[in-house]
Amino acid sequence: MDAGRRIETALDAAVAHLEAPGAPPRLAEALRYAVFPGGHRIRPRLCLSVARACGDDDPAAADAAAAAIELLHCASLVHDDLPCFDDAPMRRQKASVHVAFGEPLAVLTGDALIVAAFETLARGAARHPQRLAALVGLVARAAGSPAGIVAGQAWESEPYVALSDYQQAKTGALFAASTVAGAAAAGAQPLPWRLLGECLGEAYQCADDLRDVACRQEEIGKPAGRDATLGRPNAAALLGTDGALERLKRLTREAIEVIPDCPGADTLRAEIEAQTRLFLPKSLANLVSA
Amino acid sequence: MDAGRRIETALDAAVAHLEAPGAPPRLAEALRYAVFPGGHRIRPRLCLSVARACGDDDPAAADAAAAAIELLHCASLVHDDLPCFDDAPMRRQKASVHVAFGEPLAVLTGDALIVAAFETLARGAARHPQRLAALVGLVARAAGSPAGIVAGQAWESEPYVALSDYQQAKTGALFAASTVAGAAAAGAQPLPWRLLGECLGEAYQCADDLRDVACRQEEIGKPAGRDATLGRPNAAALLGTDGALERLKRLTREAIEVIPDCPGADTLRAEIEAQTRLFLPKSLANLVSA
Repeated sequence: MDAGRRIETALDAAVAHLEAPGAPPRLAEALRYAVFPGGHRIRPRLCLSVARACGDDDPAAADAAAAAIELLHCASLVHDDLPCFDDAPMRRQKASVHVAFGEPLAVLTGDALIVAAFETLARGAARHPQRLAALVGLVARAAGSPAGIVAGQAWESEPYVALSDYQQAKTGALFAASTVAGAAAAGAQPLPWRLLGECLGEAYQCADDLRDVACRQEEIGKPAGRDATLGRPNAAALLGTDGALERLKRLTREAIEVIPDCPGADTLRAEIEAQTRLFLPKSLANLVSA
Repeated sequence: MDAGRRIETALDAAVAHLEAPGAPPRLAEALRYAVFPGGHRIRPRLCLSVARACGDDDPAAADAAAAAIELLHCASLVHDDLPCFDDAPMRRQKASVHVAFGEPLAVLTGDALIVAAFETLARGAARHPQRLAALVGLVARAAGSPAGIVAGQAWESEPYVALSDYQQAKTGALFAASTVAGAAAAGAQPLPWRLLGECLGEAYQCADDLRDVACRQEEIGKPAGRDATLGRPNAAALLGTDGALERLKRLTREAIEVIPDCPGADTLRAEIEAQTRLFLPKSLANLVSA
């Protein structure tokens, strides 16, 4: 099965558990709405690529890790879109969850997806409890406080923040989790894989800033120009479009260079090059490969 | 160390990890505010009592299970108090988290506490990965969808709900998790312990309804009469104070009767009798023991 199919199948199984008989019907509907259809599934693709590069000897564990990371990402999107944060009306070309289902169910959808991430790990990595223990710790670290995505979002409530702390927590942590969890799911040492995830997280952040500044809403499925509206730092606004594109190219090269020795390193390199092309919509991606 | 000290120590260690260097300071402050000072810590006490009744051969695992359950309970209080749910101004004799820290940090505090519950399990139960696997699954089941506390809260967004489904998910699930997780942490079969937790969950719900109807705000640390204001079902309103007190007595007796065979059954019986007395403020508790 190719990576895309594996990811959608794993996410579908995870969401199906949440919708089991007895679930409140509107919550169940909101949970599926928040997860499907997805974006490019960049983080779980990265996770599976690393797992395969490390031998992928327990595909159920790798699928669970990939799904858990995407569930956390979806949870963070639902909560970040809430009126008390970005008050975003749209996400992935459709109404955001609180617009479609109301604020109470949007809060609960995010909560349930966070829980589901860990439940998915427990179910999928049960064959190797030692790996499960590592995975729960690695994924939790990327999600919570002091340095996960929740902490990243919380920096927006602080009067002073170092841009790098903010971006590392808000974006970098989940990319780093994607690579280390992919390795851990396959029984490899996770730590050497962190740097690759961090480089790709920075590259993605840079691409996201470019999309916000240089694209129209139809291309990115959510309102453009939000960083300026919300007074948030943006690499493309600071460096200009060309400067940000240059930075993105450099970070992508760096990522390729820091791939640890592993059985599937060559394939992994090619996959990461393909995945980073998904960071930008076509109009901008052509400029990077130029 | 007595149970109360074990619980506060375990919670303090869990929160200290969330406040580690690099954490956003206001989030860190809100996290500690949401967990300390606590209420009666009824659920973690129950968890530790069951673990001890089952031999408590890995106290770190039992402490982690107890802390994880209390962290989830605190998370649910923070989110339930939000303006889009109960809009509660007070909790545990002080301003609720969104009043003290604002709505964005209240959402994130709940999120971070959910994550912390699983991180605490991963850290504390590392010596027995097989038990950790069981604990993550049991705790997740009590927290999320289809039948955990998040689902319980989501029933409030449905046009029709069976009262038993609502109360079982909103209150019963975490009590059931307290007993099964206590057993699992000590290496015992968790399933036989579910019924005890469910009985105590029903008893607690009945006591909570009594407190809402029959107590003043100063006694319970939050506004009284909220169920009537919010149009929620309440056993004391349905059965009258005497009827609800009778039901509470019966449920407590049932709980004592369904304790599974275990090395520490006698001590456990006494502990549960003491713990159920904490369900009500003194003015009402005297009526139950009368």
